[in-house]
Amino acid sequence: MGEITDIVDDLRERLAASPFHSAFGLEVVDAESGSVTLSWQASENDLNLQGLIHGGPLSTLADTAMGLAVRTAIAPGQRHVTISMQVQFLRPGKPGRMRATGRVVRVGSTVAFAEAEVVDERERILVRSTGIYAVTLLADAEA
Amino acid sequence: MGEITDIVDDLRERLAASPFHSAFGLEVVDAESGSVTLSWQASENDLNLQGLIHGGPLSTLADTAMGLAVRTAIAPGQRHVTISMQVQFLRPGKPGRMRATGRVVRVGSTVAFAEAEVVDERERILVRSTGIYAVTLLADAEA
Amino acid sequence: MGEITDIVDDLRERLAASPFHSAFGLEVVDAESGSVTLSWQASENDLNLQGLIHGGPLSTLADTAMGLAVRTAIAPGQRHVTISMQVQFLRPGKPGRMRATGRVVRVGSTVAFAEAEVVDERERILVRSTGIYAVTLLADAEA
Amino acid sequence: MGEITDIVDDLRERLAASPFHSAFGLEVVDAESGSVTLSWQASENDLNLQGLIHGGPLSTLADTAMGLAVRTAIAPGQRHVTISMQVQFLRPGKPGRMRATGRVVRVGSTVAFAEAEVVDERERILVRSTGIYAVTLLADAEA
Repeated sequence: MGEITDIVDDLRERLAASPFHSAFGLEVVDAESGSVTLSWQASENDLNLQGLIHGGPLSTLADTAMGLAVRTAIAPGQRHVTISMQVQFLRPGKPGRMRATGRVVRVGSTVAFAEAEVVDERERILVRSTGIYAVTLLADAEA
Repeated sequence: MGEITDIVDDLRERLAASPFHSAFGLEVVDAESGSVTLSWQASENDLNLQGLIHGGPLSTLADTAMGLAVRTAIAPGQRHVTISMQVQFLRPGKPGRMRATGRVVRVGSTVAFAEAEVVDERERILVRSTGIYAVTLLADAEA
Repeated sequence: MGEITDIVDDLRERLAASPFHSAFGLEVVDAESGSVTLSWQASENDLNLQGLIHGGPLSTLADTAMGLAVRTAIAPGQRHVTISMQVQFLRPGKPGRMRATGRVVRVGSTVAFAEAEVVDERERILVRSTGIYAVTLLADAEA
Repeated sequence: MGEITDIVDDLRERLAASPFHSAFGLEVVDAESGSVTLSWQASENDLNLQGLIHGGPLSTLADTAMGLAVRTAIAPGQRHVTISMQVQFLRPGKPGRMRATGRVVRVGSTVAFAEAEVVDERERILVRSTGIYAVTLLADAEA
């Protein structure tokens, strides 16, 4: 339990230190090793030309949930960089609170696989995504 | 040439009418039937935890270029909704001006396929994406 | 239970009637509405240049499990055609019996989403896939 | 030109040495560094339940064209393993000769990106695909 609290605290600090994430307005709801749940408020400002929540912020939400889930599953001295992401839009979104859960599928020696789901307030799945990440040692990445 | 000017004007009006796109700060550089080029300024505010441009705004940029390209290739009474998107991150991005070109690959009777590339100021490809769109009549979509 | 037996029988008949599937050598292990499990024997003949099971037959296995799962979830007068498929190779495969489970994620009015996992004899996940299908009325498709 | 002949010869030898590819019946039409064109005869035996060429062999064809293109672009002591593949089915296929061209998009230090197109005898694009490959030293892979 102490460990989980530490993971949540660590992710909150990371998000607070990231200019992009601070502006985007994410909240860490829950986290454990290999899994992270985020919350995000979709507003009228996120509507696209068709009056639906734009796929961009929904992709960002799914991407962040997957990336942070990978973060919880690799060593402190390792670093992950997104190689690719696939996003499926199952249902259109409307303004309201969204919840995204990212989950690590597998961490290999150099590549990690993750997935995420975004649900709306009524627990309907709006988005499903998969992501692939390069995992390197920090020293390599800096080099 | 008059037609191309019309297409560019139409897209600019659409973006201006979209709350999300106005806030995101996109510019229509060029457009013709089946192809759209956008410009976007990546700033320090778009950096992620690793000091690179976050995949979220880059995906949004690619998604919008593809979606608008589909828009130029379907009839006025038709509507397109994103089914899925795949994004590959070829190189990390740094703050600066980005250019995204979206291109329609095929418009079928109910499904459209598109692709996009995002390049940085030095013309290096940062992102490549593919997108799949449901194409419906406006009346169907409203029903 | 009678219904499930019917579904399994229906799928077995379909596979038997398909020249491609007969040659490929698939077996329907289990099926219910929205979910299908197949079995396939990977042999020395399926090895690629690196001595691993080629991604081609593994993709075929996942694709078929997803397609048949969609088949169980749509009406008899409807038809499904693959729009796109994404396959992730989590671990290399060796000759032996593989099991693929396909599952429908959502069937919309014109598009269906599915996913599959392929595991080896030791229940290790080798492949994960997602698929998108156009769902049409048979009459439309023939037109 | 001598170099290109060498590349074609090398790929033909590789395919001949692979049990899977020999059985599948691929022909190397053309190859240069970063690009490979294959030819494959789709027969009645490749038809699926709907009387169309099954997505499985078309995916295999695209996958092989991409993989061989990566092979031409990495060093002899390096090895590539497929991480993921996405395949889009633009048009249904009928029996006849297919041609697949695979092309390397980028080879990074540990990851390579490729794409392929499959066209039919009338040069209509049936399939477009993207692939991601882990690139390792042979010694690492054997370890």
